Amino acid sequence: MKEVKYNKINQEDLAYLKTLVDEENFLCSDEISEDFHKDELGTVSGKPDVMLYVKNTMEIVNIMKYANEHLIPVVVRGSGTGLVGSCVPLFGGIIINTSKMNRIIELDEANLTLTVEPGVLLMEIYDYVEPRGYFYAPDPGEKSATIGGNIATNAGGMRAVKYGVTRDWVRALEVVLPNGDVEWLGRKVVKDSTGYPLKQLMIGSEGTLGIITKAILRLEPKPVESISLLVPFKTEEEGLNAVPEIIKAKVAPTAIEFFERKTILFAEEYLGKKFPDTKSDSYILLTFEGKNKTELQANYQTAADVCLEKLGAIDVFIVDTDERKESVWKARGAFLEAIKASTTQMDECDVVVPRSEIANYIKFTYELAKKYQIRIPSFGHAGDGNLHIYICKDTYSDEIFKNKLSAIFDEMYQKAKEVGGLVSGEHGIGYAKKNYMKQVLGENQIKLMQGIKSVFDPNCILNPGKVID
Amino acid sequence: MKEVKYNKINQEDLAYLKTLVDEENFLCSDEISEDFHKDELGTVSGKPDVMLYVKNTMEIVNIMKYANEHLIPVVVRGSGTGLVGSCVPLFGGIIINTSKMNRIIELDEANLTLTVEPGVLLMEIYDYVEPRGYFYAPDPGEKSATIGGNIATNAGGMRAVKYGVTRDWVRALEVVLPNGDVEWLGRKVVKDSTGYPLKQLMIGSEGTLGIITKAILRLEPKPVESISLLVPFKTEEEGLNAVPEIIKAKVAPTAIEFFERKTILFAEEYLGKKFPDTKSDSYILLTFEGKNKTELQANYQTAADVCLEKLGAIDVFIVDTDERKESVWKARGAFLEAIKASTTQMDECDVVVPRSEIANYIKFTYELAKKYQIRIPSFGHAGDGNLHIYICKDTYSDEIFKNKLSAIFDEMYQKAKEVGGLVSGEHGIGYAKKNYMKQVLGENQIKLMQGIKSVFDPNCILNPGKVID
Repeated sequence: MKEVKYNKINQEDLAYLKTLVDEENFLCSDEISEDFHKDELGTVSGKPDVMLYVKNTMEIVNIMKYANEHLIPVVVRGSGTGLVGSCVPLFGGIIINTSKMNRIIELDEANLTLTVEPGVLLMEIYDYVEPRGYFYAPDPGEKSATIGGNIATNAGGMRAVKYGVTRDWVRALEVVLPNGDVEWLGRKVVKDSTGYPLKQLMIGSEGTLGIITKAILRLEPKPVESISLLVPFKTEEEGLNAVPEIIKAKVAPTAIEFFERKTILFAEEYLGKKFPDTKSDSYILLTFEGKNKTELQANYQTAADVCLEKLGAIDVFIVDTDERKESVWKARGAFLEAIKASTTQMDECDVVVPRSEIANYIKFTYELAKKYQIRIPSFGHAGDGNLHIYICKDTYSDEIFKNKLSAIFDEMYQKAKEVGGLVSGEHGIGYAKKNYMKQVLGENQIKLMQGIKSVFDPNCILNPGKVID
Repeated sequence: MKEVKYNKINQEDLAYLKTLVDEENFLCSDEISEDFHKDELGTVSGKPDVMLYVKNTMEIVNIMKYANEHLIPVVVRGSGTGLVGSCVPLFGGIIINTSKMNRIIELDEANLTLTVEPGVLLMEIYDYVEPRGYFYAPDPGEKSATIGGNIATNAGGMRAVKYGVTRDWVRALEVVLPNGDVEWLGRKVVKDSTGYPLKQLMIGSEGTLGIITKAILRLEPKPVESISLLVPFKTEEEGLNAVPEIIKAKVAPTAIEFFERKTILFAEEYLGKKFPDTKSDSYILLTFEGKNKTELQANYQTAADVCLEKLGAIDVFIVDTDERKESVWKARGAFLEAIKASTTQMDECDVVVPRSEIANYIKFTYELAKKYQIRIPSFGHAGDGNLHIYICKDTYSDEIFKNKLSAIFDEMYQKAKEVGGLVSGEHGIGYAKKNYMKQVLGENQIKLMQGIKSVFDPNCILNPGKVID
């Protein structure tokens, strides 16, 4: 969008910034590990001039006021588990690291809310609420992500089919705006028709509109019982075609995951652990949750019958013992890492398509793999149409991989557009997917987004070069 | 916000606008009934120069292009059931009436979606999907509202406790922007992290950012069984205090409604029908829904036990026969109309507060009624903290009522702010609540909203004078 000339951080800036946080929380230039130049996938990198671990809202306010006045770019970082470069300081400047702002502030049982700081990890939230009988539904694969990062990307996860995504579980946010103003967006309330939904705008804005400093999350009573069905199919096609039919059967699963045999084999190798079954080409994993076993039974029985009698499933394994649950879910949780370990480098596509188009879309990726002679493993949240597709470099040279990747992504996002899908289901746009978003949404919507960015951040100080910039 | 000098519609404008729709769909000046000068509550009015019943998106595009070029203000109207003046043409100009754009376009069973035009009524949606085994959860009291209006105000309703509000049930929107551009915001997908959420911004923007021309709604399998408990309490206080305790009991009700004895008496009189019980001062109505009776039983049994043993309920009536359901829900649905019929004129307050503050807040309205010597009946979605409070004019003169109203509203919204609440839970801001929104959210957030308005509608042509303008 607009051209901004940022100021290079000088000694005076450093001296001032140093006064804003505790001594051990100020890191300069080469004191900052290269891990902080990139995110989990590492497809783009940038070197920060300074990284400040913040401990409270006021520290962030002071940093933003200074940065905004002095035209110094700022990037916010949590655990750095993103995949599209959102936390990478493309223009140098300041990294605000929120990972030490990690207190759980309040469990409010009358209002069913949990108030947290942004650096609290997803797994810490589960560990805190579940033993107390509560449930925070969003369930992204990466449990060591911070809740701030989850909100910034509107993370989804496996239970979205039934419970929705992070957006649906945020009651309110305290944010620091680029000029240093502090605002509460939303409240500890269930309904809100009070003007334009600024909270909604902040969720999924990937740290480009404001910095999340507190979040009030929605909780629900924890479903006590859960059961999964692992359903093998002879071919990938049969497995994929089963998904819309299961949806039509009205059995309300919490999650429907699809994976191929070869993805399981990577996970077995990566974890050094056996999966319950690897004889079939494709698998669907269905999960059901409820207050008691009777509540579940009718639903999973119907689902099992439909799979066996109508959809050609080879078998239905009930995943109910702790041992089986552990083996299945551990494998499922390791897919990304396992595929990453199977290759020299990879890039990913996180499209979301109508659920009726999943089989069609995955078949298309098989054709691309053939056409470009490259390995494209995938797995996905079949129940919500969100696919994770990995293009693996393997033994190709940097240049050949780059060219293939570019051509494959062009075709993939074009296809997503054609079938009524979108660029990102849950990983965001960041730096890596900006052009594809433009391709799918068109110039008008990008211009509206750029306009919104200018309203919040006229100096373009916060996370420049990302999403629409 | 900014000063705009609109053009008065002239003969040339009228001649051109006439060519854009069918002859019978063009109404001019005094041909337009006075009903279209105001909304359901009628607290503000304005006379349109022309009203066009539109039949498709292209007609709206043509009108908007012309209006935007010629600086003629445009207001969109559905059933006109709003309560804050959102559909009132304050500056004259054009009313686009979408009530004839009322086709149900597609039920997609594999993706669990229903595509509709904006003029489809809420009750028509239920009638269409429920016999087919599907469920559209939002449940506002006013079933003859259009879905376009519901989306424009982010309507809530009774089932929000469990299922969320309209926002949570909209997958995608086709909108015409003020300049006539047509955009699809969102898709037929479950997850979306593709840039800033423009769809979210459109929902609840009360016709100030764009015109909804198609909506893809989310459906779920219909819960087959439903049961309600009508729980009488000796005092209002006991009834209200029960609400957070029921939430803490983790029984996941679909709805928790609170009402006072006197509200039931108005409804009995209005409907000419008896309510099952009117001996107690206050009542809570709890609803549970599920796939089968066993699934429900554990929850409603626990709720009943808690009410009787811990919370001092006088009795628990199970509302399970068709006759009882009809009598209870008909009364509940008639509360607004019944209160309206009990007075000469009224205005309403639709605050939403944390659920833990409901008892406190309602007690405060009782104090206000005493202090200002005025009748303030109320009822509310106690389970989600959204209260509907009516200030009744009765025999007061216009001037005295106006003064009392202004003082009472000031106190009410101030109190809402103090207890962590917001101005509107589901009715919106429109014209009537603009100043109170500013009072509660503060200048910064209003400025951000005004900035957003300017991005979408630089000429301020669409619904001027509303929400933030």
